[in-house]
Amino acid sequence: MYSKPLILVTNDDGITAPGIRFLIKIMNSIGEVVVVAPDSPKSAMGHAITVNSTLSCTKIKIDSGPQSEYSCSGTPADCVKLALNEILNKKPDLCVSGINHGSNSSINIIYSGTMSAALEAGIQGIPAIGFSLLDYRWEANFKPFTRAIEIITHNTLRKKNSNNLVLNVNMPKVNHEKEIMGIKICRQARAHWIEKFDKRINPMGKEYFWLSGDFINNDKKNDTDEWALSNDFISIVPVQYDFTAYNMIEELNKWSFE
Amino acid sequence: MYSKPLILVTNDDGITAPGIRFLIKIMNSIGEVVVVAPDSPKSAMGHAITVNSTLSCTKIKIDSGPQSEYSCSGTPADCVKLALNEILNKKPDLCVSGINHGSNSSINIIYSGTMSAALEAGIQGIPAIGFSLLDYRWEANFKPFTRAIEIITHNTLRKKNSNNLVLNVNMPKVNHEKEIMGIKICRQARAHWIEKFDKRINPMGKEYFWLSGDFINNDKKNDTDEWALSNDFISIVPVQYDFTAYNMIEELNKWSFE
Repeated sequence: MYSKPLILVTNDDGITAPGIRFLIKIMNSIGEVVVVAPDSPKSAMGHAITVNSTLSCTKIKIDSGPQSEYSCSGTPADCVKLALNEILNKKPDLCVSGINHGSNSSINIIYSGTMSAALEAGIQGIPAIGFSLLDYRWEANFKPFTRAIEIITHNTLRKKNSNNLVLNVNMPKVNHEKEIMGIKICRQARAHWIEKFDKRINPMGKEYFWLSGDFINNDKKNDTDEWALSNDFISIVPVQYDFTAYNMIEELNKWSFE
Repeated sequence: MYSKPLILVTNDDGITAPGIRFLIKIMNSIGEVVVVAPDSPKSAMGHAITVNSTLSCTKIKIDSGPQSEYSCSGTPADCVKLALNEILNKKPDLCVSGINHGSNSSINIIYSGTMSAALEAGIQGIPAIGFSLLDYRWEANFKPFTRAIEIITHNTLRKKNSNNLVLNVNMPKVNHEKEIMGIKICRQARAHWIEKFDKRINPMGKEYFWLSGDFINNDKKNDTDEWALSNDFISIVPVQYDFTAYNMIEELNKWSFE
């Protein structure tokens, strides 16, 4: 039924976001595209799934092109689960998520709905790529990255029999393709956020908070995604989902539990 | 101000859940306890944080005891961020999360609100333990684990200067303490869920889904959390939050991006 590779496209900014519309156009040139994406923005959803309420999924068409599209009430991880189990009639060759409006480099991966969709595909044995651009604006300029996205996607499709291939691709904010310094394979920088809460008072006199913060990166080596991005490289971090801190096992085995 | 260790307690089942009430009682015997927990159940929230809406936090008292308690509108990760930035006036010596009603072993960690709170504390440089019991019921029997929880907590407090100490503790369902075979340091089993969606029709004739599934574990070695739990051991997996697949970096460096 599918002669071209079958590509599942999702995101966390919602099915109408410019980032996913741009990604769909590129994927249409590479494979048979099925879009299953959240019906509204689900940023910072982490790897949330919907277990205490119901999910709905509607076949729609946001704009022209050969892709099939489904709008789903759940989280990005829900979208991947629904796609694999209820929508696609065969296992996809690839899942791409994004293009996210904003960075998912370094520790941001843990909060990212975009990357949770890619990781969920990986858990299910499907190669996956999360694409993110370091520009939060709705009018972000994705055009300079067309060729890089095509190259990374073709490479991943060629290597699709590699075990557990999940890539976290972040792209620097540039105006033209020629400003991109290249593509760099990286590790996740050991950085974190220092939170700041903006405390306000509502009209009824009750205190409430907005979460904000500063990103702190003291990991200055040149093999990290942060280094690559700050030097106008596209960063690719291969990722995995075994949380075990293997280097701690020996120490913990010395603990006394009597 | 705090002579005893300062312990932050949170969970994902909500501040009134029996699991957190039991954990608070144990922690009151060990340190100065501040509870900052979700005002309603936030299971399977993964590492979601609240960025597109506001947060509120109310000082309350659910039951007697020396602990201070705050009920928060956000996710488990939000609770930890709010506690560290707006509620506590010094860095806590430890964060404990749970006791979760249900397993967070193996791949379940990635969906877990309980463990996202512990990981968030770890990211902020605070030793943390997530406790989970393999019993989903509200009337789950936590009593057999009192001594084990005390021992693990005291050990963690003694080692609190170790870098990034975050433990995922899962406890088997037993009726009496003597049925526990011991405490085992483990790695995360390489298992996953095969989803099943229960498809239904609502009164307006529209299709909707409930997520369910079967847990598939083909990782049968005896060093995993799943092995420990199925043999009535308490499993401790030391965890970390660097998602980099270091074993893939060499292969990716061979890719051609021309």
